[in-house]
Amino acid sequence: MKHITPLAYTITDPLIRAALAEDIGRIGDITSAATIPDDKMNTLVIKTRQDGCLAGLDMALRAFTIIDPEITITTHKNDGDRIKAGDVLATVTGRSRALLTAERTCLNLLGHLSGIATQTQNMVDLIAHTDARLVDTRKTLPGLRAVQKYAVRCGGGYNHRFALDDAVMIKDNHIAVCGSITQAVAAARESVGHTTKIEIEVDTLDQLREVLTTDADIVLLDNMPPALLKQAVKMVNGKMVTEASGNINAKTIASVAETGVDYISAGCLTHSVMNVDIGLDYIAQNTQKEGTNDQLQKRLSAV
Amino acid sequence: MKHITPLAYTITDPLIRAALAEDIGRIGDITSAATIPDDKMNTLVIKTRQDGCLAGLDMALRAFTIIDPEITITTHKNDGDRIKAGDVLATVTGRSRALLTAERTCLNLLGHLSGIATQTQNMVDLIAHTDARLVDTRKTLPGLRAVQKYAVRCGGGYNHRFALDDAVMIKDNHIAVCGSITQAVAAARESVGHTTKIEIEVDTLDQLREVLTTDADIVLLDNMPPALLKQAVKMVNGKMVTEASGNINAKTIASVAETGVDYISAGCLTHSVMNVDIGLDYIAQNTQKEGTNDQLQKRLSAV
Amino acid sequence: MKHITPLAYTITDPLIRAALAEDIGRIGDITSAATIPDDKMNTLVIKTRQDGCLAGLDMALRAFTIIDPEITITTHKNDGDRIKAGDVLATVTGRSRALLTAERTCLNLLGHLSGIATQTQNMVDLIAHTDARLVDTRKTLPGLRAVQKYAVRCGGGYNHRFALDDAVMIKDNHIAVCGSITQAVAAARESVGHTTKIEIEVDTLDQLREVLTTDADIVLLDNMPPALLKQAVKMVNGKMVTEASGNINAKTIASVAETGVDYISAGCLTHSVMNVDIGLDYIAQNTQKEGTNDQLQKRLSAV
Amino acid sequence: MKHITPLAYTITDPLIRAALAEDIGRIGDITSAATIPDDKMNTLVIKTRQDGCLAGLDMALRAFTIIDPEITITTHKNDGDRIKAGDVLATVTGRSRALLTAERTCLNLLGHLSGIATQTQNMVDLIAHTDARLVDTRKTLPGLRAVQKYAVRCGGGYNHRFALDDAVMIKDNHIAVCGSITQAVAAARESVGHTTKIEIEVDTLDQLREVLTTDADIVLLDNMPPALLKQAVKMVNGKMVTEASGNINAKTIASVAETGVDYISAGCLTHSVMNVDIGLDYIAQNTQKEGTNDQLQKRLSAV
Amino acid sequence: MKHITPLAYTITDPLIRAALAEDIGRIGDITSAATIPDDKMNTLVIKTRQDGCLAGLDMALRAFTIIDPEITITTHKNDGDRIKAGDVLATVTGRSRALLTAERTCLNLLGHLSGIATQTQNMVDLIAHTDARLVDTRKTLPGLRAVQKYAVRCGGGYNHRFALDDAVMIKDNHIAVCGSITQAVAAARESVGHTTKIEIEVDTLDQLREVLTTDADIVLLDNMPPALLKQAVKMVNGKMVTEASGNINAKTIASVAETGVDYISAGCLTHSVMNVDIGLDYIAQNTQKEGTNDQLQKRLSAV
Amino acid sequence: MKHITPLAYTITDPLIRAALAEDIGRIGDITSAATIPDDKMNTLVIKTRQDGCLAGLDMALRAFTIIDPEITITTHKNDGDRIKAGDVLATVTGRSRALLTAERTCLNLLGHLSGIATQTQNMVDLIAHTDARLVDTRKTLPGLRAVQKYAVRCGGGYNHRFALDDAVMIKDNHIAVCGSITQAVAAARESVGHTTKIEIEVDTLDQLREVLTTDADIVLLDNMPPALLKQAVKMVNGKMVTEASGNINAKTIASVAETGVDYISAGCLTHSVMNVDIGLDYIAQNTQKEGTNDQLQKRLSAV
Repeated sequence: MKHITPLAYTITDPLIRAALAEDIGRIGDITSAATIPDDKMNTLVIKTRQDGCLAGLDMALRAFTIIDPEITITTHKNDGDRIKAGDVLATVTGRSRALLTAERTCLNLLGHLSGIATQTQNMVDLIAHTDARLVDTRKTLPGLRAVQKYAVRCGGGYNHRFALDDAVMIKDNHIAVCGSITQAVAAARESVGHTTKIEIEVDTLDQLREVLTTDADIVLLDNMPPALLKQAVKMVNGKMVTEASGNINAKTIASVAETGVDYISAGCLTHSVMNVDIGLDYIAQNTQKEGTNDQLQKRLSAV
Repeated sequence: MKHITPLAYTITDPLIRAALAEDIGRIGDITSAATIPDDKMNTLVIKTRQDGCLAGLDMALRAFTIIDPEITITTHKNDGDRIKAGDVLATVTGRSRALLTAERTCLNLLGHLSGIATQTQNMVDLIAHTDARLVDTRKTLPGLRAVQKYAVRCGGGYNHRFALDDAVMIKDNHIAVCGSITQAVAAARESVGHTTKIEIEVDTLDQLREVLTTDADIVLLDNMPPALLKQAVKMVNGKMVTEASGNINAKTIASVAETGVDYISAGCLTHSVMNVDIGLDYIAQNTQKEGTNDQLQKRLSAV
Repeated sequence: MKHITPLAYTITDPLIRAALAEDIGRIGDITSAATIPDDKMNTLVIKTRQDGCLAGLDMALRAFTIIDPEITITTHKNDGDRIKAGDVLATVTGRSRALLTAERTCLNLLGHLSGIATQTQNMVDLIAHTDARLVDTRKTLPGLRAVQKYAVRCGGGYNHRFALDDAVMIKDNHIAVCGSITQAVAAARESVGHTTKIEIEVDTLDQLREVLTTDADIVLLDNMPPALLKQAVKMVNGKMVTEASGNINAKTIASVAETGVDYISAGCLTHSVMNVDIGLDYIAQNTQKEGTNDQLQKRLSAV
Repeated sequence: MKHITPLAYTITDPLIRAALAEDIGRIGDITSAATIPDDKMNTLVIKTRQDGCLAGLDMALRAFTIIDPEITITTHKNDGDRIKAGDVLATVTGRSRALLTAERTCLNLLGHLSGIATQTQNMVDLIAHTDARLVDTRKTLPGLRAVQKYAVRCGGGYNHRFALDDAVMIKDNHIAVCGSITQAVAAARESVGHTTKIEIEVDTLDQLREVLTTDADIVLLDNMPPALLKQAVKMVNGKMVTEASGNINAKTIASVAETGVDYISAGCLTHSVMNVDIGLDYIAQNTQKEGTNDQLQKRLSAV
Repeated sequence: MKHITPLAYTITDPLIRAALAEDIGRIGDITSAATIPDDKMNTLVIKTRQDGCLAGLDMALRAFTIIDPEITITTHKNDGDRIKAGDVLATVTGRSRALLTAERTCLNLLGHLSGIATQTQNMVDLIAHTDARLVDTRKTLPGLRAVQKYAVRCGGGYNHRFALDDAVMIKDNHIAVCGSITQAVAAARESVGHTTKIEIEVDTLDQLREVLTTDADIVLLDNMPPALLKQAVKMVNGKMVTEASGNINAKTIASVAETGVDYISAGCLTHSVMNVDIGLDYIAQNTQKEGTNDQLQKRLSAV
Repeated sequence: MKHITPLAYTITDPLIRAALAEDIGRIGDITSAATIPDDKMNTLVIKTRQDGCLAGLDMALRAFTIIDPEITITTHKNDGDRIKAGDVLATVTGRSRALLTAERTCLNLLGHLSGIATQTQNMVDLIAHTDARLVDTRKTLPGLRAVQKYAVRCGGGYNHRFALDDAVMIKDNHIAVCGSITQAVAAARESVGHTTKIEIEVDTLDQLREVLTTDADIVLLDNMPPALLKQAVKMVNGKMVTEASGNINAKTIASVAETGVDYISAGCLTHSVMNVDIGLDYIAQNTQKEGTNDQLQKRLSAV
């Protein structure tokens, strides 16, 4: 099975800290401070209430250990795992106040990223009978791109370029200004280094014909119906990598994949996400004393 | 009509800058740099391709003026407006490269916040025949709480507490540790200042009965079916503010609202959001020269 | 006794780090580096030279462990304790250079916050024979509001709203623009959610009369002499929470409290603070080896 | 007259932004948003209600223009000026909401810094008949050292070293570890560059005698009564700069200065500060339309 | 001529601000504040005292306008231009104090980046008779990678991958762990998306033979002497992009380029840089009043 | 031997984190993630391939422990040590992926700082037969001043003023505006505190003559040939500290030092630095299990 490139905690911790800061505010959890003694201990389990694909467990659990380094954690599932309603994902032990303070921050991130992984996995399953790969886009939420793209990987998808700077993507407007497809690709090739790929978007077979005479690396076949897409893939005939985009969803994706296209990109993977319902449940106190967060630390460090 | 409390640009600009940084990366828009002369000018329009409720227009447009302060902007709609597919929301004029660099950052935020406002408005419409108000929760995405809650206001909803520190919310666990509902409310009242409200969650009418003997301000009636909810509202009889929560969605909300409850809270408003499809279209160049961003500045400053 | 809502170290550490950065500068403690070997160890005690009320001990001691995580600390007093000149507040053991580097940062914060707690406690003592509570204001120093308000709690005071966004406070000018007290309260109620309280300021009994017909939560009786205040409290007759402000100091506070007002707010608690003189003394070296900072960590984590 | 070294706005703006962020919070001024139309304009005057010495006017006024760059400002006084109760310090014109949002941030800083300048000036006045200069210490509040030391300059005082790294200050403990005064000064001289001064603290004339044989630059005469101080100054006889410290206040400072000591340092200048009462008053609207913030910009830029 | 991808000022300004903060410190330019009146104006020219290639002019000049937005600037040269000793690069007019405060920050960056561009250009000139392109490495200085790589582009070089995440680079150790070249390339291809290139390092022709059977995009021929390199290039025969590295300097580069290799990478371009001596000279005051910084703003915005 | 004032890790860690962030990017080390199992362990040695002077070892090694706190480190050399090609500087054990991720960040900083120390040491050696001391300047790279100046200290040099605010440096232009050398020094003395030194730059003996009548602390003899310098030193005759600058390099420095001048300042120490080639080598795995990073922690904490 494909390995999922992890995110170093130096990338994700600032996000967790920002989310904690949002929720702790300027005073803290005034309810727990008023009603719970500060030496009260608890063991909680993080449990999913829906089926899905897990993403973000280790990074989200950091909410607990950032708030209180003495909290111990045992994880029972890994990112990328298929999870069933009722599955216990992790067990968390420590001071009750700290657990309550970190709870929502942990669950908000975990539910969102698992939502992305779940939607991704569902669509990947729909094209499993083809060689096509599902990829994400730059249609992500502010500040969350790195973790959202990680969740796509957890769901079995692949990442398209991360930003405006790690691959060339030539569209209509660039072509119009440059004069022609040929000139636009040449200008790009002249400008970027040898580790950067060039992708160009086309709407018609005529445009595709010209693209095939350039040394672009990837051609994006935009908004083509399956029949036209099949023709395009045939024309390309392995000379370039092909990517289809436009109106990709659970209903359309199989027919697109069956055209023989190499990659299918879908904005909905990251811009329209249904949260997976994951919650925190209390279990008998002090029964889980052997729990440790060594395992978490190990995985966090596994950059 | 209710005024929407705006967010100062000192709150939203850091978010826009972070999102721009994600997309610009460490080099910039290598495609445009290679294919478009740096003195090329354009006028673009921001147009919605779906019906919905607008949220985040001014703050999202800052992506353009942060990248290039010489870009001029005219807005044609306001946050909170109902928009129809095809509506032009704003016109943007400036250097083509800068426009292309900022495009995705602007649209990603605008589509998400309008998605929240649209879902909120749809649910508010469903309870318009009652006095119930729709409120959000703390189930928001990391780093986006302030803007997500703003979008809820744009859609006609109200905000619940912002974080753990601006209202007391007593739940089962707090009660269990404190000994009783009465003791938990008393402990909270003893701890917080006079500007802080106390809300307490109950699952049964027995619990509610005890709550009514305390000086809590709000009672959260959690996961009660409409019939039970109606009884609860009757029992409260205006002595406290009532709030219903649990399994609130487009199918259930009307029946909940018809029980006479004062507020209904729904996590889906912010944790499960469908993007509104808003795009950038080219129009004839240099035809919109009179556009200014004065209007935007005025509204940005209208804290 | 009332529990003091603590501040998470995720809130206070950035302040300590900023203060350390100010004092360490760009090179560090050039005097100690030149004159003290880097393996020299010491045990120091933090001792108060004045009577007062302690505030900020745990957070201020973080200056030592941030500089050198191997420093061990034992605390002998708790925030909120009454302290007497000569009391040892904490014992600190570690490398001499690190101790000297962190010393001033720790003491500057501790002396200031204890100054606030001491002034607060003195005024609280003066109204202990009444039911009135003392509250702070937004008249705080830049960047220090969270810790200053915490110190007020340590001294036995309560916190007024934290900022412009967690309670409505309607003043003359808002009323003038809105047209009337009634309209201003209605506009506010229409705008904010159900967890937000509305306070309104009045100068006269006529204004108070109108306020009492609204559903404001709190009425601020501004700059009223005790006799007038007594009349106002009588008029309110428990229908709203009452707060008095204006010219509150050690000489006036008892007579204000005796009018029966619920809350008294005083800007001087945070804007005019006399430092409590707390210093660091050397004791015999290496005698305190059993000291640990477990206790500190426990309390830091007790959010 | 001595010129006051100003602080560049690149130093002070981050402080103002942090203070604004504290007060605006995550939503903003919910009261003004609910009750004041966003196109309502006002002209306000900033007026002192007490006599004192002004400090921080330009930097504090930035609170207004950071919130709303269209606010215009005219200043009527300069930092370092003696001000009388009733004096108008500045006139501010712009949108009412923005003015109200920035008000407290501006006044909190202005009142505190003017408090420092006022206390400094009062003590400087008390020693005006001597050649002694008053200097501050490192006993400042977290994050405020740069502006507090600026306020001391406004009041006619001088700055001692800024931090641990810009001058050597040898105390008892350093001497004890090094073996002798002579060895400590030599070690320091060997370690630091030629732009760094060396100061050494002594308690007795015996110590002073040894100091005079070294090439230290400054001798700190700590906690010496005036008679002893006079002897010490005589012994030094101009060979080094002399500084007195310990128990310096309005009652003691003149007698200390009269001993002929060159500098007197006092921690109270920055650690125990009484706020100067400065407020915002409304005047007839729109009458001050000619006001501009050019003047402010000019002075801000005058680094 | 190849266009140089510019860096948005949102990327470079934080660097300039950090550099200014280093030099302004916590007080500012105490010398100028003491000796120069704040209304004193000057016009300065930035002049090179050595031949070279210009890089970083626009971004370095921001030091002036960040310190004082009223400073006006006219630029006379562009990044990428060959410059001769004595050439005036820019003219700067404004308050003397602000000019002096920003001077060193501007010149330090400009001299360093021009040093990189100059060294790059010198080496590019040495291989101009071949088709080989010169590329940089990840051997850059902390915090300066984006601007150092920009300077390489100014000098006519190309950029290798920016970081660990935008291209795969398989080295000995990866191969050893994976089992074989074939397995390592396959594992990488399985893991990364279609916009990411795969490069693999080889030391011998045997390794190269295996690489040619994989679908790697680029082969790095490490530390091969020219004769061996020529053989390797012949073996590859255009099937992959070739890159040579190891001991590349002014003496060796031509013979390496003449082997027919496509790219040559050299760490010295960014890790061992001789500053270009560029200084600030005074010219008659107030004679350049027509200067504007419009031009700078235009170029800054030209992302 | 002179003690080297260390830099607290609170100063250097932010730099290391920024450098790591540059190299990790938004995804991480995609090569290692694809090809190396996350539980693979290694022991590496950091070895110099050139002779030189070591600087920055402890701070650079933090790259490893920041990425993965379970990495253990043993250091074999100290900053300031003379090192020979082949010397092992440190041994590092931990997860292979983490080691590879941190490698370049560590080496880039270590090579640069050792380059500075080596150049400094070479020049210090050239003047060892005189009493002159070598000092750096403000000609440093953006964001690196503190560590570059630290490296100068490691090489046996001394630091000149850190920034514009910790010593007065009067140049031609200041004198011209003030009217005379005498007036400029007097203005400075009137403005700064007693811990701040005043240096003044002169080009001629006439200027020097006037400087000697002032109470400046240091005179900078700029661009004087050795013969003139010797005359100048004679004129000063110990009344002030003397410093020579201008065209200082390995060829000229001995003759300058032999004039009897006290200090010699050279910009090249920090603005034109040749990297020292230091690399990472693999050794047999798991053989170094006893390694600990206690030693590193001790030295990091030794502020």
